[in-house]
Amino acid sequence: MADRVFSGMRPTGKLHLGHMAGALTNWVNLQDSHECYYCVVDWHALMSDYADSSMLMENCREILLDWLAVGLDPSKCSIFVQSHVKEHAELSLALSMVTPLGWLERNPTYKDQILNLQNKDLSTYAFLGYPVLMAADILLYKAVKVPVGEDQSAHLELSREIARRFNYYFGEVFPEPQALHTTTPKIPGTDGRKMSKSYGNSLNIADDLNVLWDKLRTMMTDPARYKRTDPGDPDKCPVWDLHKFFNNDPEEMEELAHGCRTAGIGCVDCKRKLFGHIEVVMTPIHERRKSLEGDRSLLDGIIHEGARKARLVAQETMEEVYKAIGMLR
Amino acid sequence: MADRVFSGMRPTGKLHLGHMAGALTNWVNLQDSHECYYCVVDWHALMSDYADSSMLMENCREILLDWLAVGLDPSKCSIFVQSHVKEHAELSLALSMVTPLGWLERNPTYKDQILNLQNKDLSTYAFLGYPVLMAADILLYKAVKVPVGEDQSAHLELSREIARRFNYYFGEVFPEPQALHTTTPKIPGTDGRKMSKSYGNSLNIADDLNVLWDKLRTMMTDPARYKRTDPGDPDKCPVWDLHKFFNNDPEEMEELAHGCRTAGIGCVDCKRKLFGHIEVVMTPIHERRKSLEGDRSLLDGIIHEGARKARLVAQETMEEVYKAIGMLR
Ligand code: SF4
Ligand code: SF4
Repeated sequence: MADRVFSGMRPTGKLHLGHMAGALTNWVNLQDSHECYYCVVDWHALMSDYADSSMLMENCREILLDWLAVGLDPSKCSIFVQSHVKEHAELSLALSMVTPLGWLERNPTYKDQILNLQNKDLSTYAFLGYPVLMAADILLYKAVKVPVGEDQSAHLELSREIARRFNYYFGEVFPEPQALHTTTPKIPGTDGRKMSKSYGNSLNIADDLNVLWDKLRTMMTDPARYKRTDPGDPDKCPVWDLHKFFNNDPEEMEELAHGCRTAGIGCVDCKRKLFGHIEVVMTPIHERRKSLEGDRSLLDGIIHEGARKARLVAQETMEEVYKAIGMLR
Repeated sequence: MADRVFSGMRPTGKLHLGHMAGALTNWVNLQDSHECYYCVVDWHALMSDYADSSMLMENCREILLDWLAVGLDPSKCSIFVQSHVKEHAELSLALSMVTPLGWLERNPTYKDQILNLQNKDLSTYAFLGYPVLMAADILLYKAVKVPVGEDQSAHLELSREIARRFNYYFGEVFPEPQALHTTTPKIPGTDGRKMSKSYGNSLNIADDLNVLWDKLRTMMTDPARYKRTDPGDPDKCPVWDLHKFFNNDPEEMEELAHGCRTAGIGCVDCKRKLFGHIEVVMTPIHERRKSLEGDRSLLDGIIHEGARKARLVAQETMEEVYKAIGMLR
């Protein structure tokens, strides 16, 4: 059997090209070689958005459309919504029995997030238990590989510790999940900072080509190219980072870099070339997205089937958990 | 529709006459007038016994046998095991989203229990969340009446506050459960203290008549009756408290009280009379228990059916919860 992979994303809105380059491209590759469970973790989103949950349903739909559009294939992997598989809550409760409070209170990510999201009241019981639910997400599928960003390494380490502690008390039920770090290309936003919804600098997967061009046209370049005749340096230009991800023509890249350094081309020329490549990559993605947007029952069917497949494994794991603990069945 | 009643008991071993007089007799009465959900809360037991869960399954069976023996009737109420209805874990997770940590940390019962059970490590995430799971237990059935002992009043108040807070954020889903206090007779143990497994002074429901008589024979009486010829005072005698519960013959009671005060009878005479009444009450209970002990599949069928009935209501409530929050279904 192929190794199991679990990965989740919080549904907080439309995804951008940073998600695509950083995670989803990797997810799409993994589905050919692994048994993959890709989960929209709506309970996790609710932990921070309980005070206004009005966008939750819409956000779940949008993220699913983005996933499917970029090429996650429901015939190759399980695509589902966390709350549709009750066993996530169940295993979380089971793991909470053996999770020391101190582990959660001392979790550095916990303290960071409370500081970062000061406009939200995160001093809830659920939010403290974020890593317990995350451990349940992963362990429920006995996933051994977990694609994570570096900022989630601490959480994954906690998942491993919780797995070890459960196994210590009740016997070897869970394998310890390992992080799957892949080199993720740098995808800056239109202002040169990290692409992020909260900075308002995102190129979204769902943005149509006109919107993408508008954002690209006004995107920051090497500040040295103040005038068309000023030479620049691609290594100091956020547009160039996008070239590295979307441009698959090394000769053209070389010409453009030379043109930039010698002021032989203008930034708009350079961006137009980039846009040509973005167009090639994004057009089929937009077509898939459009066709799914128009057919809600298709999306419903996909997540229904995804949950069904996930549940088969989840229920099997829970039966093992009950047996290991010695609960009456 | 009759008001819904929910009550749960932690499976920690065989029940004693204190449980019978204090809670179960009341439960048996309620099943005729209310829609009752009686739940063996095994997750709650695991919270304190995770370090050694070897007795959990056996304890669940014993408590169920005791319930059925004293007259809980599966055709009148739903008798089930908490972990058999996954929605308890689900609703607990949903309620945890809006439960402030401070409410749990300041919960006086929490601090008391940590102090009382110092031989157990209760500094786990689950144990801090005890009142959240308890709120889920009750609210899952929209129970409006909850028979509780006085020591659980603080927990029930927390359940009400959690219900209010959920309703505040997501709309009126839950009625606020009210405590159903009934006058519970005083049932002391053989040493005159509160009857409790941990004191080793219990008369158990499952004790056969020989055992009951042995325990009764050596049970403490009014210390003033040091010799047979010393007069006593029934009001100072724990055996008399048992008379008050088991003896349904006021005339006999009057004679015995007189005999005690005048040293006209001995304590053994008085106990023999009491034992006669206990025998009448306990014999059919023991017969029911015996017949159930011998047929494991009967018990399995009862809790299977109980869980099915409970799940019907639980799933309905969860659909409302999802809709109120605005989760994708
Ligand atoms: S020419 Fe291209 S690489 Fe050079 S600064 Fe302009 S956009 Fe950036
Ligand atoms: S005679 Fe009965 S009531 Fe009086 S002290 Fe003895 S046991 Fe108690």
